[in-house]
Parts: sequence; C-alpha cells; structure tokens
Amino acid sequence: MTLQEAMQAVEAKMYEIVNSDVDVLRDASRHILQAGGKRVRPRLLLLAYAANGGQDFASVVPVAAAVELVHTASVVHDDINDHGVVRRGRPSVNAIWGRTFALLTGDYLFTKVYELMAPHRDLNVVLSEATVALVEGETLQASAVKNNDFSRQVYYDIIARKTAALFRSATRLGALLANAPESIVEAMGAYGFNVGLTFQIIDDVLDIVADSEKLGKTAGVDIAQGRGFAVAHGGMGQPGGVAVVEETFDDSMVAIRNKVMRGGAIDEAYRQAETFAQMAIESLRPLPDSPAKESLIEMANAMVKRER
Amino acid sequence: MTLQEAMQAVEAKMYEIVNSDVDVLRDASRHILQAGGKRVRPRLLLLAYAANGGQDFASVVPVAAAVELVHTASVVHDDINDHGVVRRGRPSVNAIWGRTFALLTGDYLFTKVYELMAPHRDLNVVLSEATVALVEGETLQASAVKNNDFSRQVYYDIIARKTAALFRSATRLGALLANAPESIVEAMGAYGFNVGLTFQIIDDVLDIVADSEKLGKTAGVDIAQGRGFAVAHGGMGQPGGVAVVEETFDDSMVAIRNKVMRGGAIDEAYRQAETFAQMAIESLRPLPDSPAKESLIEMANAMVKRER
Repeated sequence: MTLQEAMQAVEAKMYEIVNSDVDVLRDASRHILQAGGKRVRPRLLLLAYAANGGQDFASVVPVAAAVELVHTASVVHDDINDHGVVRRGRPSVNAIWGRTFALLTGDYLFTKVYELMAPHRDLNVVLSEATVALVEGETLQASAVKNNDFSRQVYYDIIARKTAALFRSATRLGALLANAPESIVEAMGAYGFNVGLTFQIIDDVLDIVADSEKLGKTAGVDIAQGRGFAVAHGGMGQPGGVAVVEETFDDSMVAIRNKVMRGGAIDEAYRQAETFAQMAIESLRPLPDSPAKESLIEMANAMVKRER
Repeated sequence: MTLQEAMQAVEAKMYEIVNSDVDVLRDASRHILQAGGKRVRPRLLLLAYAANGGQDFASVVPVAAAVELVHTASVVHDDINDHGVVRRGRPSVNAIWGRTFALLTGDYLFTKVYELMAPHRDLNVVLSEATVALVEGETLQASAVKNNDFSRQVYYDIIARKTAALFRSATRLGALLANAPESIVEAMGAYGFNVGLTFQIIDDVLDIVADSEKLGKTAGVDIAQGRGFAVAHGGMGQPGGVAVVEETFDDSMVAIRNKVMRGGAIDEAYRQAETFAQMAIESLRPLPDSPAKESLIEMANAMVKRER
C-alpha cells in the first residue's frame, strides 16, 4: 500500500465508521468529512511511521483515521462557539443542522475515535492526552477572549495545546506503531509539535490576510472574536490596546485588519513560523535518510508557504 | 474494600482525574461532580462485579468512575440543549459558566473517560458502544421533538439508547471484570438494560409530577420541550395531538401537566416500569445467591418506587 493509497484508506475508514442509523449523525458527519480538509495529521502519522521503518500502512490506517476524527470533532464544536458558517468551503454543520445537532455530531465523532482506538492499549493514552490538551487549549482561548488577556505568552500556550499537541501525538503514534525506540519517539514528537506551531501561526495569518472563499472557511474570525496572532501581537486585546469582542465582521473589523496588515505582525508571524519549521526539521536529524524523511522535511517547509 | 468504600473511591477517582490546570475546566467539572447525583451506574457495575465473584473492588474503581463520567458529560451537554438551569439541586454548568464553557467542559469529561479506560482493551469497546448509543438516543430525541413525531415506539427507541445502553454496559463491564462466562455477561447486560428502562420511565414520570426543588433539577422540561413519556403517551406531540415546543414553562404547560396527570399515562408508566424491573430481576436467575445479588434485586424494585 502506497502513502497515497493509505490516505485514501484513511478517508474510507472515517466515512465508513460514522455509519449511524440515526440520519442526522450519519449525514452531518459525512457532510463534514466529504468537505475534505488538508488531512495533515494522518499524513504526518503515516510518514512518521514510514520514516521509522514501518511497512504495513494498512495496520495503522485506523489510528490515522482516529487522529483526524479528533480534529474533525473539534472543528464541529468550534463552529458552534465561533458561529462559523463556512467550513472547508461548505456550510458548517452548525449552519445546516443547528446548534443542538452540531453539538451531538461532535460528541458522536469524539466517541467514534475511541471505537477506533479501543484495540490499542498504550496508544490510547497518547491520543487521550492530546485530546485533553486540545480541549484545554480551546478553553484557554475562550477564557483569554472573555478576560481580554491575550498576551503573547497566552497565545503560545493556547496554540501549543489546541493544535501542536495533536500534531505531536500524530507523529509520536506513527513512531510508536513502527516500534521506534523512546528517544526517537520523543524526537518525532518534537517534530510534530513544532510543525503544529508553524501550522497554527500560518492559520492565524491566513485568517487575517486571506478572504473566506480562498480559505474555505469564514475568514476574519480571530479578529472578530478578539484573539489569535494578530490580537496577541497587534496590541489589541491587551491592556491599553483595542479590545475586540464583537462577533460580526463590520467596518471597524476591516479597519483593524488593515492596521494589523500595515504593522509588523504579519512579518513577525512568518519569522516565527519559519523558526519553528526549522526546529521541526532539526528534530529529524537522528533518522536515517529515506523518502519519508524527505517528505517530512518538505511538509515542514511547505507549512510556512501555504496559502490555505 | 466494602461497597461503600468502593463508592467513595469512585467519587475520589472522578474528582482527582479532572485536575486540569485550566481553571474553568477543573472548577466546572468539580462543580457538577460535587453536586452529587445518584451514582446508580457505578453502583450497578460494582454490584454486578461482586455478584459474579469479583473481590478486588479497588481494581474496578477506575472503570466504574469512567461509566459515571460518561453520564456526567452527557448531563452537562444536555443542559446546553435543554436550557436546564438547575441540576442536582445546584445551578447547571451552563447557567454559571455559559454555553461555550459548558460545551468544552462536557468534551473534557468525555475525554477523561478514555484516559481512565485506556488500559482496558476490550472493555473500551463496550463503553464506546454505549456512548455512541447515548449520543444517538439524544439525537433521536431532538429529532423527534423537531419533527413532532413522538410516538411510543420512538419513545422506547430513545430511552433504550440514551439511558438503558449505558446501564447495560455498566452491568456487563462488572461481569466482564469478574471474568464471568459470556452467557452470564449477557444476562447481566439484560438486567442492566431493563433497570435502565425502568429508571428512565420513572425519571420521566418525576419530571411531570415532582417539583424542581424536590427533584434537584428543572422539572417539567420534558413537557416544555414536547417529549418524554407524557408526550408519547398523553397524545401530545403526535399528529392531531397538542404540539408542545415552547421552551418556557408557562400556564399552558401547567394545563398540559394537569391533563396528563388526570389521564392514565402516569399509571401506565408505573405498570411499564414495574414490568421492566421484574424482567431485570428475572435475568439474575442464573446467578448464585449472594448479598450482591440481593442488592441488585432491591435496586430494581427501588427504582420503581424512587421519588427523586
């Protein structure tokens, strides 16, 4: 099975497992899955597995699917809290089915994760830790907005938990499934963690500079909700800065966006993202050369340059 | 360790595991846990374990705690969808912390379930199946209200999934942890399932006849939301019946409550509950006599008579 085939098998596995006879759960789950997404996390897991000598892609597909489902579930719940109406270029579950069913669909997807992970004793711990971190990161973010305390330190704590922890678990799981020694598992975790930081910083930049159509989700959400890189680095949301808590993207939001774009925050974001990408690549040093290792290096670099 | 001590250990385990450094998650989780609750599910698990010869209560405490946390998580999410403001005699998480943090607290509790269950390979499957069923039951209920289709058949499908499935998993898990043979595991599952149906029917009756203070949660929610035993058996919510979809408990709700109470629905509910309790007790026949078996019989009977 090639990487390409494995990624298709991950897709099929996710689609197949959300087979509830309760129409809403099945339809809403498949709606969000069919909308696609970048599938970065399962790809990282598979590459980490291959880069450590793993050869049986078929056996790791369910775990890769589980990692992506954690992300998918969190996305469905995020769109409730953020009032996001566009996700992956389609209406969000929340927009189509409403809040109650979106909440239940997210719960359903989270539950299916553990159905997939049930046979994997120790790996379960790795994924549940990452899922706890993800929920904690989302909570810290909502608290920071509420308390108008979006300092840089808080920003990094948030993205470490809400994004980088799941990336870290993906690459650790790949290494563990390939029976890599502990030091390598940790090195792979460091790679995933730093790639996750890169990914989230660029995500936040794109939220500022891209429009919704290109992005495939509601743009400007971070500024509208008073959070994210722009707010942490642009002086908004901090004492003495411009507090941004409205949830509609009106003219004042455009003004703030323009202000951020004129300032140095975007450049700083790219520098930070580049630094984390290089740290990620550095973590791969102990691995022997292989096509999978090359792909991991390419992915870290591409993460800085992505436009959606 | 006595049953009483084991129940205290379950309590301590739940309290201890929700130890996030994110204040809201820790505080909201401990708020709902400290409010208490009947703790029927872990008690059933422990008794099913003891009735099958299990002697090491300490070893099953984490699994009993996990089952109760599934229920606790679902309660937190229910209160978002139902706008419930009182739960276990205290303000709901939703009422104190708001919708966003209630959603995240529920996610957090669900995730902690799998942290507890991670070491248990096969048991994980049992609990994840029950959790899927629970979410499906809640979804069927919301769909039935939305589509104004709350027939008796739909009602039983809903309570089988949203309540009885988790009760069934509790008693099956107890038997599995005691290494009971498969036929006994299934018998214990049938006991739990029927006790769960009894429990939910009486819950629905109490929602009609009790007041909020005695009940420890917002009463009248079912009628207010157009669902539950009264609606399924009282002619409301069905074609030609009285559609009840408002979410406030106003004078018209009181009128409907009175109508239901004058009709035969309450008596019928008690007859049904009694029947399921007897079926539950019948399932225990293959077990040798023991104090734990006696307690299981008592619990089934007490379930019909409970007033809160």
